[in-house]
Amino acid sequence: MDSPIKFTIEKKAGAKENKLLRAGIVHTPHGNIETPAFAVVGTKATVKAITPEELKAISVEVMLANTYHLHLRPGSEVIRKAGGLHKFAGWQGPMMTDSGGFQVFSLGEAFGKGITKITSHKEILEEQKENIADKERPEPVAKITDDGVYFKSYIDGHNEYLTPEKSIEIQHNLGADIIFAFDECTSPHASYEYQKEALERTHKWAKRCIDYHKSKPNAENQALFGVVQGGKYEDLRKIAAKEIASLPFDGFGIGGSFSKEDIGTAVRWVNEILPEDKPRHLFGIGEPSDIFAGVENGCDLFDCVAPTRNARNGALCTKDGRINIYNAKYREDFSPVDAGCECYTCKNFTKAYLSHLFYSKEILANTLASIHNVYFIVQMLKNIRKSILSGDFEAYKKRFLTEYYGMK
Amino acid sequence: MDSPIKFTIEKKAGAKENKLLRAGIVHTPHGNIETPAFAVVGTKATVKAITPEELKAISVEVMLANTYHLHLRPGSEVIRKAGGLHKFAGWQGPMMTDSGGFQVFSLGEAFGKGITKITSHKEILEEQKENIADKERPEPVAKITDDGVYFKSYIDGHNEYLTPEKSIEIQHNLGADIIFAFDECTSPHASYEYQKEALERTHKWAKRCIDYHKSKPNAENQALFGVVQGGKYEDLRKIAAKEIASLPFDGFGIGGSFSKEDIGTAVRWVNEILPEDKPRHLFGIGEPSDIFAGVENGCDLFDCVAPTRNARNGALCTKDGRINIYNAKYREDFSPVDAGCECYTCKNFTKAYLSHLFYSKEILANTLASIHNVYFIVQMLKNIRKSILSGDFEAYKKRFLTEYYGMK
Repeated sequence: MDSPIKFTIEKKAGAKENKLLRAGIVHTPHGNIETPAFAVVGTKATVKAITPEELKAISVEVMLANTYHLHLRPGSEVIRKAGGLHKFAGWQGPMMTDSGGFQVFSLGEAFGKGITKITSHKEILEEQKENIADKERPEPVAKITDDGVYFKSYIDGHNEYLTPEKSIEIQHNLGADIIFAFDECTSPHASYEYQKEALERTHKWAKRCIDYHKSKPNAENQALFGVVQGGKYEDLRKIAAKEIASLPFDGFGIGGSFSKEDIGTAVRWVNEILPEDKPRHLFGIGEPSDIFAGVENGCDLFDCVAPTRNARNGALCTKDGRINIYNAKYREDFSPVDAGCECYTCKNFTKAYLSHLFYSKEILANTLASIHNVYFIVQMLKNIRKSILSGDFEAYKKRFLTEYYGMK
Repeated sequence: MDSPIKFTIEKKAGAKENKLLRAGIVHTPHGNIETPAFAVVGTKATVKAITPEELKAISVEVMLANTYHLHLRPGSEVIRKAGGLHKFAGWQGPMMTDSGGFQVFSLGEAFGKGITKITSHKEILEEQKENIADKERPEPVAKITDDGVYFKSYIDGHNEYLTPEKSIEIQHNLGADIIFAFDECTSPHASYEYQKEALERTHKWAKRCIDYHKSKPNAENQALFGVVQGGKYEDLRKIAAKEIASLPFDGFGIGGSFSKEDIGTAVRWVNEILPEDKPRHLFGIGEPSDIFAGVENGCDLFDCVAPTRNARNGALCTKDGRINIYNAKYREDFSPVDAGCECYTCKNFTKAYLSHLFYSKEILANTLASIHNVYFIVQMLKNIRKSILSGDFEAYKKRFLTEYYGMK
């Protein structure tokens, strides 16, 4: 069966020190994604506070929605009856859905613990020292078996059971252009032994996802990506990459946890093994330095809630780093958030106005801030792409990171 | 001194039973308002949940912002430094600011009592019977003297003192095209004697507003409207209309409380006295039947928070009346909110999607619902205008009200 998507590589960086950097195009049934690209997150079939029209105006190419959330509400059957996610959400461009596997992590081991996907070695050492595991913590609301995962609904507490087949079934109802195999996203605090066991489970699930997917007519219109896990362990990441690469997936997701210090290295372990001719999505990474590391090491697609979540908290991106719009100095600052930025927010409003909206808790604060932050990150990816095509990636990276994080 | 605005009447209905109905154009320094027209309310220099770009797309012509709120935050000096309200809020069309007088009512006598501007006789009789005044109630946060009004700030409780001069000063800082004289908006529960006393105060304040306004350079760019009060009493309304009409205002606001049963009659008392060649704004009226009554009796401009407030509560306007989007039957209703509606929301989204957004408490719910409700009311006024110009007002009114409120 032909893949519903095509991936063409336009340019490989080719420098001897880096064979992974590339720019390409993912051709999907709902249009092209020029890579490297940033997918905006529309968890519940809406990018928080932004209309699809506004997303188009800020050159967003692709949206990622969330299988688990949409399964709980409104239910994937409702979306199927609506004619699929594109119609339902009024977004005509390419769409992805994750598999629900990330909720195994966020609602399971990590639930209520403030554990994030990216940790520093220091953090982990400190946690071991303090033996935080013994402290009082909420019960996880996800429990894993070899067959699937039990969840408690965050809406009304009823029990849900997700299996690889169920995840694919839901994703077929949703009808995104790119869907992902159901996987177990482990905690960075899990032991090596546990990570290994989880990886074996993820690989069995990967095969079940392919079998179920291929047996259904939707396989013609929806590309299935396999997910590479393995935490921060080189051998596990490489085993995972080999295993997932050997299966007939249309592309790949790289999931799970990373050490802050060497996210690029971990991605490289994987991408040196994955076949070059299929696109690679790095899950949940939105910090500019991490995106540069991902691109540099062969990733084509990214997604993260950070741009919109930060926006709603008043943390706005500028080329000179993030600013906190609540800072008193912005109350009478009549310049745009980021000088020279071409987004609707910066072309029409000042920091003083945004400050006023945030202090007044006006809904428009969320919209204008989110438009700006999403534009910023999408534009960064577009500039990265341009720099790859023109052979200037290293220079662009250096300039961007120096300005964004300050001279150091 | 020439008025900064011009009002041209395009057509008077002329029917012998109605000499007040008219369509016209208010020419302001920031563009024309084709009347009758609905002004959207942007209390804090933003129409809640809608961008100025979206307002333009749904043909909104004029925005009303709130003097008292903007005085408290961000402060009118900030807006003056920003270059005025138009620049600050990114709204290039005509703007109005109210005078703060309405807050004398809402933060004074009416505070915490659930008293609305429009009451039925039944309501008032019931209140008198129950002697609600004796019940435990929050202290009013506005107190009135002949010179001005003391307010407690709703933000931090500090004392504010607003006088006619101060209100005009603030409105000059804000820089709207149309500003209003500072008035006392009384409660519908106030006695005749109190209404009379308040009216005398309002008329003294009207003169002070004119004097102060004319002494400042802004008078060249900002039109000052006088406000007719008088509650539900015919003699007071007529006294007020004569008094305000005799002063050199550029137009008029009709404020205060009305009896639900005869809002049209009360407006007629006033408009039969006010000079024909100046525009008349009816404050805070948004219910379709009340707007028809206002138009029919000579009002040109309207404003109300109802369309946006209702929208945020999930109450959406359709030609067949208001619907509650939370109703279970809409969860799988894949038709637009109002069939045939040309707004962004109806052209791109279904009731099922809006239901999902409301149940999910997504910010986009507010935006899409507000866009629809504002479009609905703006469109209703545009159709009213068309019907006046084509001589079909009575037929349009009958058809609209029959469909909207059901056959009765």
